[in-house]
Amino acid sequence: MIALSAARTVVDGVLAHARAARFPPMTVAVLDAAGQLVAFAREDDSSLLRERIARGKARGALNLGVGSRSLAGKAAAHPAFIGAVTSLADGELVPVPGGVLVRDGAGVLLGAIGVSGHHPDADEACALAGAEAAGLVAEPGED
Amino acid sequence: MIALSAARTVVDGVLAHARAARFPPMTVAVLDAAGQLVAFAREDDSSLLRERIARGKARGALNLGVGSRSLAGKAAAHPAFIGAVTSLADGELVPVPGGVLVRDGAGVLLGAIGVSGHHPDADEACALAGAEAAGLVAEPGED
Amino acid sequence: MIALSAARTVVDGVLAHARAARFPPMTVAVLDAAGQLVAFAREDDSSLLRERIARGKARGALNLGVGSRSLAGKAAAHPAFIGAVTSLADGELVPVPGGVLVRDGAGVLLGAIGVSGHHPDADEACALAGAEAAGLVAEPGED
Amino acid sequence: MIALSAARTVVDGVLAHARAARFPPMTVAVLDAAGQLVAFAREDDSSLLRERIARGKARGALNLGVGSRSLAGKAAAHPAFIGAVTSLADGELVPVPGGVLVRDGAGVLLGAIGVSGHHPDADEACALAGAEAAGLVAEPGED
Repeated sequence: MIALSAARTVVDGVLAHARAARFPPMTVAVLDAAGQLVAFAREDDSSLLRERIARGKARGALNLGVGSRSLAGKAAAHPAFIGAVTSLADGELVPVPGGVLVRDGAGVLLGAIGVSGHHPDADEACALAGAEAAGLVAEPGED
Repeated sequence: MIALSAARTVVDGVLAHARAARFPPMTVAVLDAAGQLVAFAREDDSSLLRERIARGKARGALNLGVGSRSLAGKAAAHPAFIGAVTSLADGELVPVPGGVLVRDGAGVLLGAIGVSGHHPDADEACALAGAEAAGLVAEPGED
Repeated sequence: MIALSAARTVVDGVLAHARAARFPPMTVAVLDAAGQLVAFAREDDSSLLRERIARGKARGALNLGVGSRSLAGKAAAHPAFIGAVTSLADGELVPVPGGVLVRDGAGVLLGAIGVSGHHPDADEACALAGAEAAGLVAEPGED
Repeated sequence: MIALSAARTVVDGVLAHARAARFPPMTVAVLDAAGQLVAFAREDDSSLLRERIARGKARGALNLGVGSRSLAGKAAAHPAFIGAVTSLADGELVPVPGGVLVRDGAGVLLGAIGVSGHHPDADEACALAGAEAAGLVAEPGED
């Protein structure tokens, strides 16, 4: 499980990347491998659904065991399947890039990072910067 | 946050536009930037789901920070994303025109107006008339 | 069914009473006999749950066909019954004064008024003032 | 609305107090006046419901406009009312100390802090320490 200290470093790394890149207001959620929220930040003037989208990306990655970029491809190829599992997950499965699994150096799953606020590639870049700041191995998924 | 006095002026402006244009019965919801209902009117003989549609247009605009006309385009281009976030929003994201963000002259987000009852362009015209009546800057979104 | 014009007069009457009495910020919901929201106002600085409480008082009156003051007595005498029906109503049954049935002069049920923001007797006084302003016969329920 | 920078200072203050006092693992949620999550931390080995309890304390304070210590008293005096509004709030109203409203020096409501992990008085002490760290005026409610 990801520790709070590491999760807070992830949040710092995400926000530093977003501000350096002059992105619009970003929201970041760090979940542990059980899907529980560990650390969270919502930048000023974020729109109302950003928490749920950021969590939905991270939780969706944990729900199916792949980064959310892989879920985007599945949604295009198998829309009925993704529709069904999204409903099962009460919506907590957002099939666009920006939800990244994180592991330790031995490959143990620690949790996931979800970012929302800009276009999906930018959101994912923030999540990867957060993982790197904390020395975690990130799995964003594949196209 | 939009004040009640301004929100009631919005409602008056929406209804005046609808009656002058001889539209069918209209429903209008004015939300503040927190998504809370501030003022509301439902014309006689409106059908049963009109409140939820009007609120869903306004809340959807606040949920993603754009007028609901922009959400209509996103729904066509990225159906899996809009489907997922609609589920996350418990349905409160109706991706058709008629949900308009409103700001003050300095650009501060005050809330959103949602209108339902006729075809989407007519609903949006009512919302814009309501914003104008209250001296608010309206963002209906883009095709 | 209560017409929008009458419902808006109710709202005006509620707010006039609250301001004359220097009450804290009030929220008022007017429902028709089908339980649909017809008119609504939320004064500035109301707390977040006020809409749901005001609606819950009005809807609770419609749900059981008595003013919400009668439901307060039932809740004391039969807590298990009120607990069960509150759950059935998804919470839309708030058993405190302030939810008032309204009828026309012939006794036909037109809808209900719910008010929240101050103590229950004050909320009910606002609702009664709103009914009187619109020339409606009010049933607040009994202790 | 509370800014992210202030909300993160609140979180730091809560955790510093908890560690100095050798409390068990604590969870802290900072909400803005709209009820949106702004910053959050969950200490390692917290039990599973801690996020929802911490948020429910903060949201409950915002829902009714008083610190959650006041809600504890209301729950004892008026159990049917608190039961009904808890249901209306989908459970997001936890009537025990530890949910604290925060205002700026001019009295403007900025949001609320909710803390869970130890006994209610200890949770509230953490919330107050967090508010003080950020220079905010705290309203914990009254017995």
